[in-house]
Amino acid sequence: MGKVESPLSRLHALGLELPPVPMPIANYLPAVRHNELVYVSGHGSVGQDGEKYIGRVDGDFTVEQGQKAARLAALNCLAALTCVAPLDHVRQILKVTGYVHSTDGFTGQPEVLNGASDLLVEIFGEAGRHARTAIGLRQTARSFTVQLDMLIAVRK
Amino acid sequence: MGKVESPLSRLHALGLELPPVPMPIANYLPAVRHNELVYVSGHGSVGQDGEKYIGRVDGDFTVEQGQKAARLAALNCLAALTCVAPLDHVRQILKVTGYVHSTDGFTGQPEVLNGASDLLVEIFGEAGRHARTAIGLRQTARSFTVQLDMLIAVRK
Amino acid sequence: MGKVESPLSRLHALGLELPPVPMPIANYLPAVRHNELVYVSGHGSVGQDGEKYIGRVDGDFTVEQGQKAARLAALNCLAALTCVAPLDHVRQILKVTGYVHSTDGFTGQPEVLNGASDLLVEIFGEAGRHARTAIGLRQTARSFTVQLDMLIAVRK
Repeated sequence: MGKVESPLSRLHALGLELPPVPMPIANYLPAVRHNELVYVSGHGSVGQDGEKYIGRVDGDFTVEQGQKAARLAALNCLAALTCVAPLDHVRQILKVTGYVHSTDGFTGQPEVLNGASDLLVEIFGEAGRHARTAIGLRQTARSFTVQLDMLIAVRK
Repeated sequence: MGKVESPLSRLHALGLELPPVPMPIANYLPAVRHNELVYVSGHGSVGQDGEKYIGRVDGDFTVEQGQKAARLAALNCLAALTCVAPLDHVRQILKVTGYVHSTDGFTGQPEVLNGASDLLVEIFGEAGRHARTAIGLRQTARSFTVQLDMLIAVRK
Repeated sequence: MGKVESPLSRLHALGLELPPVPMPIANYLPAVRHNELVYVSGHGSVGQDGEKYIGRVDGDFTVEQGQKAARLAALNCLAALTCVAPLDHVRQILKVTGYVHSTDGFTGQPEVLNGASDLLVEIFGEAGRHARTAIGLRQTARSFTVQLDMLIAVRK
């Protein structure tokens, strides 16, 4: 990348689009901003264009498919962020917490979540490098293969 | 509501009382304040008046009972908050993370947690609308049906 | 303790050493600092000197062994902190989230995590007292017996 590119143009260069904001149908919000910090709700690996990952990694899906699920959940988180701040106001992705729907005995949750972490660095560069916690769940909400939430620092 | 009411008076109008603070019997605190942010520990669905929800949703309890468990855990979180700030200093409930003790195959954790989310909006209005992550657990601490932690912005 | 001691000297007085920083082999960081807050990634109960706890509490390990696992994970978190701030800049451990690899029916996650909480108070005194959430998992990443992440307030 020889010139400064916007996060959105990098996302497009990856052949990706920011999905529509996944709207909660309940008394909570896709993301909440407080001063320079944005708290993004947990979003799952279901797109609004029909792409979806519902089921367990190591059972229903391979690790590679799990990585695509993580990437889709990350895109949903970024869409949620845009409710309160545009992508090019991101200063740093501070924390990603990732929940992976897992069969008993599957311990590769970190590899699955690399699908999200790699995407964040591809889009934001150094500002996309974050602290992360990888969690295996026997049963996720809605049976999402991956669910992510994020904490993001943005410009005033 | 024709006039401005305090969160506590709204809570009372719902027929609820703020429970006694659930005190940890260990080297941690019910809630910690840092500047304008309050980090509330995970609190479970057990009241100090004998009301309690111990067991799995979809096995031991229905979704409706799970919602009552979520409401009880939310009240315990608000009681913990009052160790460091009164209810009427709440500026915004920023984030709620909810853990639901679940049977395999139960995917309705979001509906269960609506019991907490709805209560927060009933008490705080728009200031009660938050980011949220819904998590299903095969086994919770103490077997709580619901456990919640919260991040809350308060007035200086 | 008749005189003011540094966190590091207290750690040494406990017969402990700060381990080498556990480096992620992926696009995320051991810890990220934003102003006065440090977000520490999830770190597990594996030391770089060969000490490790891999398996379930109540199955592979006793509660007492789980507490040692929690202590080891806490030391890894503190090592990660030192990538962005020295131990004696800690103002308050704000939040600890602890994941315990658990057999079905084991509900003593809080007791296991006391291994971490007690260590934090031994090292930092009042500044080590934190908000905490205790979570039981059927399957953790890498099969860690305990995984912890932390939020820590540091001096400017």
